[in-house]
This record gives sequence, C-alpha cells and structure tokens, in this order.
Amino acid sequence: MRLYSWDIAPNPRRVRIYLAEKGLDVPIEDVGVPGKPVLRPDFLAKFGHRRVPLLELDDGACIGEAMAICRYFELLHPDPPLMGGDPRDAALIEMWERLAEWEGLHALSEAFRNSRKSFAGRALAGYGAPMPQIPALAERGAARLKLFHDKFDAQLEDHEFVAGEGYSVADITTLCTVDFAEFCGLGMPDGCANLRRWHETVSARPSATA
Amino acid sequence: MRLYSWDIAPNPRRVRIYLAEKGLDVPIEDVGVPGKPVLRPDFLAKFGHRRVPLLELDDGACIGEAMAICRYFELLHPDPPLMGGDPRDAALIEMWERLAEWEGLHALSEAFRNSRKSFAGRALAGYGAPMPQIPALAERGAARLKLFHDKFDAQLEDHEFVAGEGYSVADITTLCTVDFAEFCGLGMPDGCANLRRWHETVSARPSATA
Repeated sequence: MRLYSWDIAPNPRRVRIYLAEKGLDVPIEDVGVPGKPVLRPDFLAKFGHRRVPLLELDDGACIGEAMAICRYFELLHPDPPLMGGDPRDAALIEMWERLAEWEGLHALSEAFRNSRKSFAGRALAGYGAPMPQIPALAERGAARLKLFHDKFDAQLEDHEFVAGEGYSVADITTLCTVDFAEFCGLGMPDGCANLRRWHETVSARPSATA
Repeated sequence: MRLYSWDIAPNPRRVRIYLAEKGLDVPIEDVGVPGKPVLRPDFLAKFGHRRVPLLELDDGACIGEAMAICRYFELLHPDPPLMGGDPRDAALIEMWERLAEWEGLHALSEAFRNSRKSFAGRALAGYGAPMPQIPALAERGAARLKLFHDKFDAQLEDHEFVAGEGYSVADITTLCTVDFAEFCGLGMPDGCANLRRWHETVSARPSATA
C-alpha cells in the first residue's frame, strides 16, 4: 500500500491529518516536483486520476479523492470515529465536510488557480487537457471564500466543532482550507471570532503538523 | 421526517432513485415553483441550506447534500448495500460517485446556470448573495462534460457498473447527470458505446422513473 501525496497542497493534507488522528502508519511518497507547483511527470503518466492524494492498494486498485481514502481506513479502523458514530452524526459530518470542500476548498482553488501565472492552462486539477484560466472565476472564488469563512464562523457559534460536538473529517477539510487560504493571502475576514477560537483548538492537536 | 425535493432538478433525483432502490417510503414535499426555475421563497427563507435535496428529521436536524442523505439511510438500512459492502468497494464507490458529481454534475451545472437567462445572477445554487453568470464558465462546463462522458465510457468498457460489478450510488449520480445533460442539449458525444449500454441497463430499473 502506498499513499501518493504532495507536501504543499491542501488536498493530500486532509488524508495525512486523518491518518495522524487515527495513529495509522502508511508509506507516503511525495510526488511533487521540488520547487515547482507541478506533479512529477511519471506520476501523471502512470495514474489516470492525475491528482493527489491517491492510495494504491497492494492489489493495484487505486483510490482517489481524499474522503474516499479516509472512508477506506475508517471502515477498517472505526475507532475513534472521525466520520460519525451513528447515522445522524455520519450524515451531518458528511454534509459539513462536503460543504467545506465545495464552498471552501473549491472556491479557494478557483481563486488560486485562475490567478497565478504558474497555473496558466492548468486552472483545474486532474485534467490532461488544457484548462484555461478564467479571471472572473478567480474573483468569484475569492468572494465565495469570504462567504465560506462567515458561514463556518456562524456554525461554530453554537458548536465546538464544525459538525457538532466531536472532532471529525469536517474539521479536517475546514482546517486545510482555512490554512491554505491564509497562505494564499485569502485568510479569515475581520471578526470570525468563533472560527478563530476553533482554529486555535484544532491547530493545537498533534495531527495538525501533518 | 420529510424530504424536500424538486421534480425537475437532477440533485434531488439522486435521493429519490436511492430511496426507490431501497424500497423506502419517505414523505416528500416538492418545493419548486410550478412553471418557474426557482425554489419557493418560504423554503429558501426557512432553511439556510437553500438547496434541495434537504432531509428534515423529526428532531429538527436538517441534512443537506444528496450523498449525506443517502448515507443516513444506508447506515439505517444497509441491505442491499448501495455504498459498498466492504472497505475497498465503499472507497471505490465513493471515489467514482465524487468524480461523477465533480466532473459531471458540477460541469453540467456550470454549463447550464451560466448560460440560461432565467439563471441570471443565480449562477450557483445555495447562495443568497448574487452570483453573476460567467460566460467562459458555461463554455468550460460544456467542454468538461464531454470529457466526463468519455471518461465514464472508458471506465464502463471493463465494468458492468460505474464503480465495478454492482449497482451503487455512483451509478445514480452518473445517471442523473447523463439524463439532465441530455435534457440540456449536452448529451453523450458520438461513440460512447459502453456508456450507452450502461444507460440502457440502469434506465430499465424501476427506480429510474423516480
């Protein structure tokens, strides 16, 4: 088994944090080109998924998508649950995780990849075909990201963690988004006291260094 | 318990097909405005999620996102499994379902909502703030949708169903995408013999009328 990762990207960090929370030791290969914002050509040529994280099982099956990889480990190692301990929790966690991905991480990716010169022609991850940048999409992504910060700040007013009272994969995706947004100069807007309190708590967990 | 739905939209259809496959009877309320491509103002005012499908539980908890709703029912009624019977299957199904959503349904939504006059200012579902249309995004969405059709056609060359040898939620999301794309005039490109064979098979299941 091998996890293909990229140290600087937010998506594979979701899985690395998850594994750290579970105390699971999985061989990791970093497939980024040092000093350049691209994946290694041999990785792109070998795996049609063309994205990290990617988990290659011993039988050759390849599992892409961060949450699909987490689901694999969650079913093998259910305790402590990070994807919900009962149907209601599991559903609420999946909703908030998907919202963090769609309204947070994808919005950030729109803002980032449509504005950086180094991503010209590569505005979407995972495609072999050219994907031209759309400047209006970079703008919309930044506007959406502000709404994401505000929405999650409001959710955290009444809840200790993103999906309720327990730490879950919804916190992991939110943390990877908030941290990478900060790195991109698109950090939390003024206010957001609840989101800041939450960020301090989850960043203090040993898994956050993953 | 109540499922809020909209008869003409592809997203709530994912849950309706799922429930039909499971033989589950859940009270459904259609919250579309008859004859107009908008949701009822009272629904939008009451539920911050602002999207369908939405499942309201008896304790007041609201679960949005089609797959989060399916997860809730899957954990309560695991047989027959539609989200995987073991960790490997579950992970592969989740990967392909998320790919169908991201590369298929979201691409279609980009093409559709950024080009129709009736969606001016509402280019993204779920937001109260105006979301202006981006014509270049409509174009990119249509191009991505062609790549989606080709990729899933290739996957179905060696597999009876999208995520392998069993019918799953990955087939449900793919079917809702393929059918709504056809309705939008963005149907399968020439060729796609495998996708056509699969489409005939899954469309013949009684659940497809949901």
